[in-house]
Order: sequence, then C-alpha cells, then structure tokens
Amino acid sequence: MMTKSKVQPLLVNYKTLEEFKRFKEYGNQELAMLEDLEGNIVENDSESPFYGVYYGSALVARMSLYRVQSKYDKYFTPPQDYLELWKLEVLPDYRGQGYGKDLVDFAKSFELPIKTNPRINSHDFWEKMDFKKANYDVERDLGENPLIWLPSGVEERDV
Amino acid sequence: MMTKSKVQPLLVNYKTLEEFKRFKEYGNQELAMLEDLEGNIVENDSESPFYGVYYGSALVARMSLYRVQSKYDKYFTPPQDYLELWKLEVLPDYRGQGYGKDLVDFAKSFELPIKTNPRINSHDFWEKMDFKKANYDVERDLGENPLIWLPSGVEERDV
Repeated sequence: MMTKSKVQPLLVNYKTLEEFKRFKEYGNQELAMLEDLEGNIVENDSESPFYGVYYGSALVARMSLYRVQSKYDKYFTPPQDYLELWKLEVLPDYRGQGYGKDLVDFAKSFELPIKTNPRINSHDFWEKMDFKKANYDVERDLGENPLIWLPSGVEERDV
Repeated sequence: MMTKSKVQPLLVNYKTLEEFKRFKEYGNQELAMLEDLEGNIVENDSESPFYGVYYGSALVARMSLYRVQSKYDKYFTPPQDYLELWKLEVLPDYRGQGYGKDLVDFAKSFELPIKTNPRINSHDFWEKMDFKKANYDVERDLGENPLIWLPSGVEERDV
C-alpha cells in the first residue's frame, strides 16, 4: 500500500537551489532567487513559493504556488483569492508513484480555486485531477491555456 | 540572396484554422476561434491576433501579437502600450531560413516595446533578436520567464 508522501514548503537556501537544477523547468524564477540569496537581499532559509516532496534526502517533486488577491481575480465568481499553480514537476525516476497528485491534493487542501497554465501534453494528468479548461479569452489569456479547479460553491466567470 | 518574406495578418476562416493544426502550439486559443466561427459568433474572415508567412499556398510560420493597453503595463517606463508576442513557430521543414526573424522584425516595426514568455530552449534565438530577460518578480510573473525588447527611449521598469 502506498503511504502518503509529505508535501513540505521549500525554503530558499543553497541546497534547495542546487536541487532545483535537476528540474526541467529551471528559469528566471530560480535564478532570481539565487541572486537574491547571494546578494543578501533575502535571508537564508526564507520562504519561497515552492513546495516539494523528498525521497530520503533528495527533492524528487515540486510545484510553485501563489495566492492571487481577489482584486486581481478574472476567472471566478464570486471574485475571490485563488491559487496560481506552476512548475509542477516530478523527476523522471519518480513518476507514476502519485507524487504529482500529492502536490495537487496539497494545493486543493486550501479550498481556494486553483488556476494553472499547463505544459503541452499534460492534459490527461490535469483531467484526472479534476481540472477543466477555462473558456479562452484572448485579452485575458494571451498565450496561456488556463485550466481551473473549482471548490464547491465557486463557479467560472463568464468571459 | 534571400528575399524578404511577406508577413501578413491571418483572418479567421476554416482554411487557416485547419492549417493551424500543423503547429505544435495548438491549444485553447485555436479551439475557441473554431467554436466562435462554427457558432457564428465571429464572421468568416474576421481579424485574428495571428500573423503568418506563406510559402506558396502553405502557412509555414506564424505568431500571435496583441497590443496591451498602457494601463495594464507592468514592465516598462514610462508606462505605455506594448505588444505581447506568443506562439512564434516555424514548421520544421522551413526553419533556418529567416522566417522567425521576419516575424519578429514585423512585430518590432510597430516601434512599441515587446514582451514574450519564451518556451524552454529558445533563449539563443531571442538573444539574437535583441530580447533580454526582464527582472523576475514572482507576484507579477508567476510561472513566466518574461523576455522584453525595448525600442529607443523606453526602459525596463524597476521591480
């Protein structure tokens, strides 16, 4: 029987930033965090928007999660705080073991609507997670393919 | 000597939407355009945010371009209208012939700042096009890796 993996917040430190290099979606965000740490703009072990799952001492899955304030909400009705989820990724050797679902379940546990802009070819996964395509609106979405998850009592806004 | 390819606006019609299926970045945007056409919500041959290059009668390269109003500008100083560029793509058999550059040059010809959120592994191309990384700001950029191009007289805003 599979035991539930423990999703934990990731703090900004050199060890975590080094582990981030093993993930495919390493970009400006991680580089900015490293520069802030090196320049003492953020303290060691300060909060980051990342959450992760460890297997032993190795980070094997992660996602970024940010709470967007209701005044910026263009997706849901009634307008409310929601979570933007991105960089959900499980390292290749650890796929198919439920770590992705664990991370998404953790995001859902806040009981806020969730929005994500998935990578190409990940739609089957998001469908299993009960996410659905938001209606596309060019002015709002531009190059995004937004998917949303609605907790009970929340609906998608008309575009 | 290479002749300059002709970049042209793409109109919403069944032929164009069929040609879009050959591009890798086919997503919600194209499906929404198709639904709008089928549902008579938009007229045949109405404007789209896409521009393309034809080789003979075949669409071989395209991009989407949208003018964002200055009141939404979070990237440039002074705040101003800018172009969001996405889905720049040249079909595999037609790469290395300057079509991508032709599309970007066309975007630059409006003399507005340009912002794009590039796909992984396309940074060399964007660097050749004189785009540079915007400073990353988690609250503004979330899962994006914004690149910007500045016409003369325009600067990046501090984050």
